Amino acid sequence: LRQGFPEVILGLGKTPEQVVEILKLVKDRNHPVLATRCNDEIIEKVSKEIPEAEIHELARCITLYRDKVKIPEGMGKVLVISAGTGDLPVAEEAVLTLQMLGNPVEKLYDVGVAGIHRLFENYEKLLDARVLIVIAGMEGALASVVGGLVDKPVIAVPTSVGYGVSFNGLAALLGMLNSCSAGIGVVNIDNGFGAAFLANSINRIGRNVKK
Amino acid sequence: LRQGFPEVILGLGKTPEQVVEILKLVKDRNHPVLATRCNDEIIEKVSKEIPEAEIHELARCITLYRDKVKIPEGMGKVLVISAGTGDLPVAEEAVLTLQMLGNPVEKLYDVGVAGIHRLFENYEKLLDARVLIVIAGMEGALASVVGGLVDKPVIAVPTSVGYGVSFNGLAALLGMLNSCSAGIGVVNIDNGFGAAFLANSINRIGRNVKK
Amino acid sequence: LRQGFPEVILGLGKTPEQVVEILKLVKDRNHPVLATRCNDEIIEKVSKEIPEAEIHELARCITLYRDKVKIPEGMGKVLVISAGTGDLPVAEEAVLTLQMLGNPVEKLYDVGVAGIHRLFENYEKLLDARVLIVIAGMEGALASVVGGLVDKPVIAVPTSVGYGVSFNGLAALLGMLNSCSAGIGVVNIDNGFGAAFLANSINRIGRNVKK
Amino acid sequence: LRQGFPEVILGLGKTPEQVVEILKLVKDRNHPVLATRCNDEIIEKVSKEIPEAEIHELARCITLYRDKVKIPEGMGKVLVISAGTGDLPVAEEAVLTLQMLGNPVEKLYDVGVAGIHRLFENYEKLLDARVLIVIAGMEGALASVVGGLVDKPVIAVPTSVGYGVSFNGLAALLGMLNSCSAGIGVVNIDNGFGAAFLANSINRIGRNVKK
Amino acid sequence: LRQGFPEVILGLGKTPEQVVEILKLVKDRNHPVLATRCNDEIIEKVSKEIPEAEIHELARCITLYRDKVKIPEGMGKVLVISAGTGDLPVAEEAVLTLQMLGNPVEKLYDVGVAGIHRLFENYEKLLDARVLIVIAGMEGALASVVGGLVDKPVIAVPTSVGYGVSFNGLAALLGMLNSCSAGIGVVNIDNGFGAAFLANSINRIGRNVKK
Amino acid sequence: LRQGFPEVILGLGKTPEQVVEILKLVKDRNHPVLATRCNDEIIEKVSKEIPEAEIHELARCITLYRDKVKIPEGMGKVLVISAGTGDLPVAEEAVLTLQMLGNPVEKLYDVGVAGIHRLFENYEKLLDARVLIVIAGMEGALASVVGGLVDKPVIAVPTSVGYGVSFNGLAALLGMLNSCSAGIGVVNIDNGFGAAFLANSINRIGRNVKK
Amino acid sequence: LRQGFPEVILGLGKTPEQVVEILKLVKDRNHPVLATRCNDEIIEKVSKEIPEAEIHELARCITLYRDKVKIPEGMGKVLVISAGTGDLPVAEEAVLTLQMLGNPVEKLYDVGVAGIHRLFENYEKLLDARVLIVIAGMEGALASVVGGLVDKPVIAVPTSVGYGVSFNGLAALLGMLNSCSAGIGVVNIDNGFGAAFLANSINRIGRNVKK
Amino acid sequence: LRQGFPEVILGLGKTPEQVVEILKLVKDRNHPVLATRCNDEIIEKVSKEIPEAEIHELARCITLYRDKVKIPEGMGKVLVISAGTGDLPVAEEAVLTLQMLGNPVEKLYDVGVAGIHRLFENYEKLLDARVLIVIAGMEGALASVVGGLVDKPVIAVPTSVGYGVSFNGLAALLGMLNSCSAGIGVVNIDNGFGAAFLANSINRIGRNVKK
Ligand SMILES: Nc1ncnc2c1ncn2[C@@H]1O[C@H](COP(=O)(O)O)[C@@H](O)[C@H]1O
Ligand SMILES: Nc1ncnc2c1ncn2[C@@H]1O[C@H](COP(=O)(O)O)[C@@H](O)[C@H]1O
Ligand SMILES: Nc1ncnc2c1ncn2[C@@H]1O[C@H](COP(=O)(O)O)[C@@H](O)[C@H]1O
Ligand SMILES: Nc1ncnc2c1ncn2[C@@H]1O[C@H](COP(=O)(O)O)[C@@H](O)[C@H]1O
Ligand SMILES: [Mg+2]
Ligand SMILES: [Mg+2]
Ligand SMILES: [Mg+2]
Ligand SMILES: [Mg+2]
Ligand SMILES: [Mg+2]
Ligand SMILES: [Mg+2]
Ligand SMILES: [Mg+2]
Ligand SMILES: [Mg+2]
Repeated sequence: LRQGFPEVILGLGKTPEQVVEILKLVKDRNHPVLATRCNDEIIEKVSKEIPEAEIHELARCITLYRDKVKIPEGMGKVLVISAGTGDLPVAEEAVLTLQMLGNPVEKLYDVGVAGIHRLFENYEKLLDARVLIVIAGMEGALASVVGGLVDKPVIAVPTSVGYGVSFNGLAALLGMLNSCSAGIGVVNIDNGFGAAFLANSINRIGRNVKK
Repeated sequence: LRQGFPEVILGLGKTPEQVVEILKLVKDRNHPVLATRCNDEIIEKVSKEIPEAEIHELARCITLYRDKVKIPEGMGKVLVISAGTGDLPVAEEAVLTLQMLGNPVEKLYDVGVAGIHRLFENYEKLLDARVLIVIAGMEGALASVVGGLVDKPVIAVPTSVGYGVSFNGLAALLGMLNSCSAGIGVVNIDNGFGAAFLANSINRIGRNVKK
Repeated sequence: LRQGFPEVILGLGKTPEQVVEILKLVKDRNHPVLATRCNDEIIEKVSKEIPEAEIHELARCITLYRDKVKIPEGMGKVLVISAGTGDLPVAEEAVLTLQMLGNPVEKLYDVGVAGIHRLFENYEKLLDARVLIVIAGMEGALASVVGGLVDKPVIAVPTSVGYGVSFNGLAALLGMLNSCSAGIGVVNIDNGFGAAFLANSINRIGRNVKK
Repeated sequence: LRQGFPEVILGLGKTPEQVVEILKLVKDRNHPVLATRCNDEIIEKVSKEIPEAEIHELARCITLYRDKVKIPEGMGKVLVISAGTGDLPVAEEAVLTLQMLGNPVEKLYDVGVAGIHRLFENYEKLLDARVLIVIAGMEGALASVVGGLVDKPVIAVPTSVGYGVSFNGLAALLGMLNSCSAGIGVVNIDNGFGAAFLANSINRIGRNVKK
Repeated sequence: LRQGFPEVILGLGKTPEQVVEILKLVKDRNHPVLATRCNDEIIEKVSKEIPEAEIHELARCITLYRDKVKIPEGMGKVLVISAGTGDLPVAEEAVLTLQMLGNPVEKLYDVGVAGIHRLFENYEKLLDARVLIVIAGMEGALASVVGGLVDKPVIAVPTSVGYGVSFNGLAALLGMLNSCSAGIGVVNIDNGFGAAFLANSINRIGRNVKK
Repeated sequence: LRQGFPEVILGLGKTPEQVVEILKLVKDRNHPVLATRCNDEIIEKVSKEIPEAEIHELARCITLYRDKVKIPEGMGKVLVISAGTGDLPVAEEAVLTLQMLGNPVEKLYDVGVAGIHRLFENYEKLLDARVLIVIAGMEGALASVVGGLVDKPVIAVPTSVGYGVSFNGLAALLGMLNSCSAGIGVVNIDNGFGAAFLANSINRIGRNVKK
Repeated sequence: LRQGFPEVILGLGKTPEQVVEILKLVKDRNHPVLATRCNDEIIEKVSKEIPEAEIHELARCITLYRDKVKIPEGMGKVLVISAGTGDLPVAEEAVLTLQMLGNPVEKLYDVGVAGIHRLFENYEKLLDARVLIVIAGMEGALASVVGGLVDKPVIAVPTSVGYGVSFNGLAALLGMLNSCSAGIGVVNIDNGFGAAFLANSINRIGRNVKK
Repeated sequence: LRQGFPEVILGLGKTPEQVVEILKLVKDRNHPVLATRCNDEIIEKVSKEIPEAEIHELARCITLYRDKVKIPEGMGKVLVISAGTGDLPVAEEAVLTLQMLGNPVEKLYDVGVAGIHRLFENYEKLLDARVLIVIAGMEGALASVVGGLVDKPVIAVPTSVGYGVSFNGLAALLGMLNSCSAGIGVVNIDNGFGAAFLANSINRIGRNVKK
């Protein structure tokens, strides 16, 4: 464990008891901690047992830390773009992870391709970011459009939003992997955490550059 | 067979001999005819045996008729939009079918999402059309973008252009079926003919409307 | 938002609170509104909070408007054909959407291919329509049969009705995309809304034709 | 090996040498023999080496026998129905197998669903048969239509005819397995032989019934 | 509806109210009736509302008739073979359907390939049947083994019994369609009804044969 | 590289030049070597350039060694069972690999489930082996049958033999993984080498057991 | 049933009543018995009805025996390696099965590839085992890494741990079947029992070797 | 087109004539150019028509430029890691693209997981890089192992190397997307170009950082 780096717990597949136990353990080690993919049972149990834990309903996440995470020098802005309402939990998981890892975050939500003008109205946000995370379900076309507008690293997160032949995010994943905009890195369906983790490792390059 | 309506032959899976035979038969009945999906062997054989047949290399099609097809009154423009070079054969198959069926056609080629500005520069073409056919491979995002810009009937044709997880057009097909732009009708992969056929039946509504 | 055009909300993946909130918002703007894919919780909540909202149980939809939608001049009939009992919710979603968008609708239900004579007994309904929507699950053969009987635009909606290798509508979707009847436009599984939206844009051509 | 029952060789995956060798062996045992799925190389080699072998080009089959197969008492007619030109090789493989096994065969070709009236014009053929084999590619809807018209055993053979999402016959297979007409037995894609084999075992029931 | 032929209702996807309503309707027409795929709610509701209905728990079926079905002259035995305990509901659905349609039925249960000797110990049952239905999940090998032992019509029913890559019956389905034993007719996963329906139409040949 | 252990080269995806080069290199190191998956070009080139190399046509393999491989003490017999003619190349690849690794090999070919009696006639061979490799395409049922007859380690190799929904070996693979006979280890499609490698590591246990 | 060999019951798909009944039956025959895949209802019912039954919560298993299983002479150690917390139920099912079959078991848990150093720190455990079982979900890379480190029989069990394109264990299964480390035998997803069964049959070779 | 930035042509799906034409056009504009996925026909034609073009056989690429690309200040090393011989063309395509875009490149080839020690022996190369590209076919486990060893951005490229259930790279793709090592960005199968493009956009961050 690196100094200051938060511990991350994947709530998915863990019992509320297990999550509480790990949270307490890490807390005692005086370490910031983030738990993702927490269902209602986990959230309820943690709220009761560890009142100082912060619950992030929409993101289905829990955080626990003593001192607010400081943004290290040299970090650029990470822009988190999402297509529709259903993509919000994944977007918020990414945002929270980015913040816990010390990244300044900008959000641009609800700019799906069906109303593409909203994206263009916020063009300066795209220009202002160092790394972009694009989160979309259904056909995932938003990643291609964003990728075509910037020359910066774009990380695409397909989400399970949709029905029928969206196949729980597979259609969006395939769309993103086949994007005609070159150089988009794709992560697993709904994996907001993974995208943020990668964005952070990219963003830190600015920090490590010998001036 | 309706009066003036061309006969259509699917070359795929037919021997050059079979295609020549059918072409001659229909020609003798003095009927316009269109053969699609003709490979090199078919084209060579037909060129030799029926010199008056018109070869459309890029479209992989053959036409044969006595009098040029007349555009019936009341028909609107059909706009055929395609994403990249690889989509041209499918686009041209659609164009040819539309023309043989008596539709005025406008083309807008090479406006893939990676260079989306080219699409916007031609926005008036979109406004000018009655029906739009969007042809794209890879992730097929172009259909969503076009669908978001107009309120007219949009027919989407996924193409087998791409590699890896494009799965010979499946990714584009799924993208189009899941489009966040409402009301796009999708046809089989590479089926330029089917899209044109549907566009024609839509366009004819203008003709049939009692004034 | 175009004048008189209803707002459409996709209930799927929204909480009852979210749906109520949006409905109230749009209602205050004095705009007709249609909510699709509303589950029991949404319907219950809306019934309680917005008593003037109209519940359409079978269609799983909610509508809310002040003045009944007027059918614009020049609109033709849209015929909604369905195969079996299980397809009714999708068919009714299409019907409701069509009506909210100002289309005269005719229904022809329960005419699956296993009892094909019922379809033929209603042949005049097919002749009488301007656009046809065919809704079927299992193997989806109804679309091919209808497509073979008419020269009009046919929109096919595969449904998730079936079991085993129906794969929740995939078999019907593939059947419709591969239809040997040319020129059928296909939408996503269970997407009655999308089919109606496309049918409306086609039907409006009659309206827009310059006389 | 039962008395009079022909030996069957699957040519697929065998070298011309292997096929010739087996044919000679069986011939020496004075046994009727049928070789299916024979490619050009096999056919050429056999023609040269065993001139008395009968080549069935369209069916891609070879037969070799001394005395013409006799149709046993009690056998009914097997009707082989096919949808389009591309299905002919599979249909002919079925016909040949049926004949080699001693079944009277009736053919009804080119009655695909897009021109369904041709099927109805031959309705008496359906009534006249004891067992029906339906052979179709693309969406395979023909099986459902036939199954809805008769109460007799129907065996469906999906073929690899089609392109795009026909997935080499998979779409037709799924269509047939999901048929809303009850009681259709399905065999592997392009398996005309297997369908004929099953039809024969059904037809023989008539023979075996104790009067 | 043919004289004496039972009405069949597919319970799957119907509400208890709908099933009760149809049952009462058919009963009033004095017609035998079979309802398949009835879940607990349907069974409970029917038990209460129509006490004379017969519940078949294991088969998940309901029957309702006045006079016991008579077995017509000329019918042979149908043997229903199943592999394991999990296949019983499908097997019993087939048995019940066969009986309602007037077929003498023999059962041979729990003879899966892992203990193949049990099948051989009952070899005379195989010889005694006119038609065989083989019901198996997991890898479905039982169909191949039975098909290799008899020359009679074999109908194979894959079941959704299994886990992991059984893919809810897909593995068994593929196994049966690829069987190296020629001439097996396959129906949809868990479709005991369809297999019985086909077996009945085959068995009736014996009845219809002109003596 | 362990003493005496042969080097193995995967010919698939290598040019003839590359294979020749590696073969010469290893030969110079005086090491036995086996090349698998060698196509005609590789075989031709190697025959010409390294005349002392041994070509195994059917197995598509090449071997090259100075001293014949000795069978170490304590090794048991490995029985290689295959279903049909098409499986022979895979079976022979397994046999050759086993021999190069120092295992006594017994063969039992052409015992597919459609003629299951041939397997039973050779029952003593099953009893006599220490490890069994079962190689089958199509539905792969042979693995289940063999697994049900013995308590020894069974390794199953699905082959790409078949057509239609055999999906190039996928059906056989799924069948083997779902086998109702417990404890069968499965390898990749057509991977005779891998099965032999595993069988050898199992067989060597006998050698390593401290007596 | 061999002397001393435990009876094994698959709880999956059985009612609590069925499991209790079988357990009592086998117990009366004075036979050790293992029930796998037991859900909460089964466990509760068995605890109440058969108090002497031993419940293994984590493994979802139940055992029942009179005398502790003795480890036969000649058996080596089986090492059960697992990647993460989610894999524990499968790992414990394997361990329990191995023990019931008389194998000495060593465990090496939580050594997933993301923290590969933990595996290397326990290298001597790998050297000490006769057979290895590797249990992993997600991408299943652990099997390849372990397979590359040892020359012993490795059995790989993919688990359904993961989300998105883990497809409930399919990704891990494919990874293991494609492993670049030669000679890994793979079993069905989550099939800890099957892996243990195979490991036992391998381990017993040591026992059977004639000294 | 940005100053100095090379034009990139995808050779796949283009005729030799088309490639030559585009190459000449760009060359005349005095712009560096890279053509990827060039088959033998393209390479031959270009060699003849544009002798100054540089052919990269292994990478299947062609480059054409006047002045050698300069590496801009602030760029870090990109490490390209590959698993086996078959992955070389993809690796070389990545290397060439990186160089054309002005990145210092380090190579680490042939370090597949089956011989993992080779990777560890080169650990300092991993430490020395700013961005890592991991290229592997079969099960793609190499990406997980590398991702577990470093905290830097890792881009994974699945390749179509393998056979059977490698499904032309799908297994590797799924493995990489499911990696238990957090924060790996994945591109399409065989897309060495895309990975390099993304790596370059990441590497340039160092350049753009305001010091
Ligand atoms: N939402 C998430 N999606 C994918 N991986 C995650 C997620 N949250 C946490 N992880 C990973 O899971 C690890 C923790 O797993 P565990 O030890 O099972 O709690 C973290 O170090 C992350 O690498
Ligand atoms: N049943 C439906 N299926 C597919 N799309 C729908 C459906 N109902 C509404 N939509 C689309 O979803 C949009 C509303 O999405 P939202 O803003 O998330 O409520 C509408 O404008 C429609 O384009
Ligand atoms: N278990 C079943 N599986 C498949 N089809 C069935 C089943 N039970 C009944 N059917 C078919 O469904 C029809 C009745 O459908 P419905 O009118 O919706 O009740 C019957 O006539 C049968 O053809
Ligand atoms: N037929 C085969 N199938 C699968 N793997 C093989 C085969 N033949 C050889 N191999 C493996 O491929 C390795 C050699 O690969 P290479 O260094 O590319 O020649 C051998 O050590 C084996 O592990
Ligand atoms: Mg870009
Ligand atoms: Mg639109
Ligand atoms: Mg039509
Ligand atoms: Mg029928
Ligand atoms: Mg048989
Ligand atoms: Mg066994
Ligand atoms: Mg190893
Ligand atoms: Mg890392």
